[in-house]
Amino acid sequence: MIPLGGTGEIGKNMYVVEAADGRMVIIDCGVTFPNHDQFGVDLVLPDFSYVQERADLLEAIILTHGHEDHIGALPYLVRSIGQVPIYGARFTLGLVRSKLDEHRLLADAELVDVEYGTPMEIGPFTAEFVPLTHSIPDCAAVALHTSAGTILHTGDFKLDHTPIGGRPTDIAALARLGDRGVALLLADSTNADNPGAVRPERTVGEEFARVFATAPGRVVVTTFSSHIHRVQQVLDAAYQDARVVALVGRSLMKNSNIAIDLGYLKPPPGVLVRPRDLAQHRPDEQVILSTGSQGEPLAALSRIARGEHHQVQIAPGDTVVYSSRTVPGNELAVSEVINRLVRAGARVITQESLPAIHVSGHGTATDLLMMLQLVRPKFFAPIHGEARHQRAHADLAQSLGIGADRIFILDNGDVLGVEPDRAAIVDKVHAGLTFVDRMGASDVAESVMRDRRHLSADGLVLVVATVNASDGSPIGEAEIITRGFGAGDDEELIEETRLEVERSLTASAEQRVTEIGVLQHQLHDAVAALVKRRTQQRPLVVPVIVEV
Amino acid sequence: MIPLGGTGEIGKNMYVVEAADGRMVIIDCGVTFPNHDQFGVDLVLPDFSYVQERADLLEAIILTHGHEDHIGALPYLVRSIGQVPIYGARFTLGLVRSKLDEHRLLADAELVDVEYGTPMEIGPFTAEFVPLTHSIPDCAAVALHTSAGTILHTGDFKLDHTPIGGRPTDIAALARLGDRGVALLLADSTNADNPGAVRPERTVGEEFARVFATAPGRVVVTTFSSHIHRVQQVLDAAYQDARVVALVGRSLMKNSNIAIDLGYLKPPPGVLVRPRDLAQHRPDEQVILSTGSQGEPLAALSRIARGEHHQVQIAPGDTVVYSSRTVPGNELAVSEVINRLVRAGARVITQESLPAIHVSGHGTATDLLMMLQLVRPKFFAPIHGEARHQRAHADLAQSLGIGADRIFILDNGDVLGVEPDRAAIVDKVHAGLTFVDRMGASDVAESVMRDRRHLSADGLVLVVATVNASDGSPIGEAEIITRGFGAGDDEELIEETRLEVERSLTASAEQRVTEIGVLQHQLHDAVAALVKRRTQQRPLVVPVIVEV
Repeated sequence: MIPLGGTGEIGKNMYVVEAADGRMVIIDCGVTFPNHDQFGVDLVLPDFSYVQERADLLEAIILTHGHEDHIGALPYLVRSIGQVPIYGARFTLGLVRSKLDEHRLLADAELVDVEYGTPMEIGPFTAEFVPLTHSIPDCAAVALHTSAGTILHTGDFKLDHTPIGGRPTDIAALARLGDRGVALLLADSTNADNPGAVRPERTVGEEFARVFATAPGRVVVTTFSSHIHRVQQVLDAAYQDARVVALVGRSLMKNSNIAIDLGYLKPPPGVLVRPRDLAQHRPDEQVILSTGSQGEPLAALSRIARGEHHQVQIAPGDTVVYSSRTVPGNELAVSEVINRLVRAGARVITQESLPAIHVSGHGTATDLLMMLQLVRPKFFAPIHGEARHQRAHADLAQSLGIGADRIFILDNGDVLGVEPDRAAIVDKVHAGLTFVDRMGASDVAESVMRDRRHLSADGLVLVVATVNASDGSPIGEAEIITRGFGAGDDEELIEETRLEVERSLTASAEQRVTEIGVLQHQLHDAVAALVKRRTQQRPLVVPVIVEV
Repeated sequence: MIPLGGTGEIGKNMYVVEAADGRMVIIDCGVTFPNHDQFGVDLVLPDFSYVQERADLLEAIILTHGHEDHIGALPYLVRSIGQVPIYGARFTLGLVRSKLDEHRLLADAELVDVEYGTPMEIGPFTAEFVPLTHSIPDCAAVALHTSAGTILHTGDFKLDHTPIGGRPTDIAALARLGDRGVALLLADSTNADNPGAVRPERTVGEEFARVFATAPGRVVVTTFSSHIHRVQQVLDAAYQDARVVALVGRSLMKNSNIAIDLGYLKPPPGVLVRPRDLAQHRPDEQVILSTGSQGEPLAALSRIARGEHHQVQIAPGDTVVYSSRTVPGNELAVSEVINRLVRAGARVITQESLPAIHVSGHGTATDLLMMLQLVRPKFFAPIHGEARHQRAHADLAQSLGIGADRIFILDNGDVLGVEPDRAAIVDKVHAGLTFVDRMGASDVAESVMRDRRHLSADGLVLVVATVNASDGSPIGEAEIITRGFGAGDDEELIEETRLEVERSLTASAEQRVTEIGVLQHQLHDAVAALVKRRTQQRPLVVPVIVEV
């Protein structure tokens, strides 16, 4: 058989499936958020260069679901490669449409609605979409039938048999794919190291009912703004408890409107009110559904906690419910918001104090073993999650008898070549990350971030010296300017620095050094050494030499 | 009766108890660690100024135990107020001695060993120390008998009846204090919102035994370096499993040596070996006990994970055990270390995958209710922990019938006046935080941190312009230097900025502005506005004007 090309992971949630003739599709195109030391960076994107260089061979982008880590980089990709068909389920495309519109790219996009269970020709492949359950409506696994066999990409999933919204994972379709033979399975590893089972989403609604029934006053609920099934359960529980619900926070309102328009969210009659109409209801007849579960400083709940929200003020007797998990890295921010809410008099319920108030959207070991048993793939690549989760997922596969030689933990850029009877990492292509700042206007180069890190730690010492253009000898006193430098108000040190500048320049002049670059270099080293010796700090030293 | 002064919380773990005549003692003097946005700050100390201004009235510093958040600020306090007696239990003083010695302050300190159960006169008070259990040896509650009644400060505690090391909480002493009457209880709230019970420390040792017995190769254990009872259990379990133990990491070696010298740590014969001697033993006969449970980049375990440790390299078959909790804020750093260890082939055990591998040192609701019942205080102030934990602790006290008017959640600087039959917040004194950079040499001013935050987000644009000293008109082209500025390589923007500088200076010259300060101000605003308009970024703009 003809080798069919490979599967390359480019960026966290972006996969390329390439046929032997080079034609390819992309599965998902997500963003991640920066770490604390990626200064001034607002989004981290996959590096698209591999795809950009082969844009004419790109047949389509296929989306498994509408979470930011699967669709967030789309506007940047579309901008860089131009028009390409984008396949996704209805709710996914609803979110994509709104996102591309915000970036004024809607005209460049061809959005193709997929039907579950109906095979579609996409470039050299036949694609089939299988509905799965997750924490957003319309999650799909994608099976690509290729000449080297079937490649199945699960996207994010868990196996919830009684989901909200009524469309469960199509177990039978997965089993049929398994029966016909799957060459390669790429499956979500996020919860692979958790041996337990995930409770059904429905149980969270039962918990809302209990909380609402016993809360003495208003209830504020915060959750992920795309978690439409969770929103539905808040609306239903509020309705049963004769409470009205106001939505606050831009993304929540936007996503809910899309979901209502498409029929994915069905508010019971009269339950939704505008925030400004809340005052017409007693506190114990109110629920406020808010953004801000991750402590984002500008989100509604954070503003409420700081007492800066126009329509919602916390009062003693209020209950605040975090129906969410804290994403790693956000712990301190969330903690700060919670402490403010408590000081304002609220009782705060989180997953720590009431585990049943949230369930994960990712299947644990039980579900992952089930998926492996249904699909029985020849080759397996655990994807999503961190290294340890992929390792745990690989261990689960081995426990089912899939040999270590048939399991591939891929790095960004690894090309996994799949033939009917063998698979191997056959190549490594350029891959990596692109950092985008708040306006998305420009990449943030690594050198820029390094300078920012340096400046953030010890600040800046700027030395402006005037020298004689003919012989490089210093004229007058150097000017020393500091910013963010701890010893910037140490007059003695500043005076010593001035003397050091004069000494360095005089020495250079005596050695007949007049080239500006060399002068700056010597000046930099002299000042940096002095400052280091005197303060143990290493500010960024910028020498400026003015010749007159 | 004469009002007896107050209890002021200054900094997180530093309390002042003041008699009516102004004489006072300090209980604990801890540090905290900076948040991600406190750039270049290495330690956060209480603001000592209240105590400094009254240094002649300070009778003593009393320490409940030797954790950094209770003793870490001592060197800075001693340096600022000079010699004062420091009271503490033996192990606490062992750590204090080492700390003051590192700061070359040992000569200034008078360390006084306390005996549990033996009353001591300290200034205007009679002090009594009660042994409690926690995650470090020699934790003590401090009872101060005053003319307004007894004030009991628990320090950090849990009620472990079968602790390692053999000295359990003296329940009878607490009950006796309660019988005689306690005016004010200050008690640890850290785990108040956790309704469960804490398993005894001993159960962790049983878990070590199971892990060691089944680990196919080497075991690396990481825990808090002052957790001597945990270290003891690692040594004992290793000994039982015929493994040797090497300690790696400076703080762990230092603390263990102090504990061995004072008899708090008793290594079984032959179990301790030097890291360089590990090679003489088979992998499954080795345990490495390491610092780095919090992902600290320079700690031993982080260096091991990066493959940068001289004596320890991870190999497939190794097991790494986190016998610790991840302190909020450290999640991403810990996660990164774990992923590196997994990639190197290790199996990693954490509290998430094996809950029994760590227990908290802070009592949960069960223990806190027991403490309140034993002591039956007239007035109660929940201390330690965050606002939500103190609120939860206050709720526990109310559930026992302590009225809300007898419970005080104190802010830094609040003065709680206690008389035999009433207590109230009667004053507010200056309190706050002091930021210390890596050398402890200087405070880091808020303005310096603000500049660092600014520089870290958008970088710097430096404008150096030469003007005619007589009329302020520009001479030649301005020099534009950027650091950490995303658009720094945008030639067009740099050229536009040069033109804007010339335009601004020419306009100023036409208005006959020659004063440097005004020129700089106008130049700054002109350049900042241009950059903002063109890039949507707000770098720090520093204008430098050279007159010739």
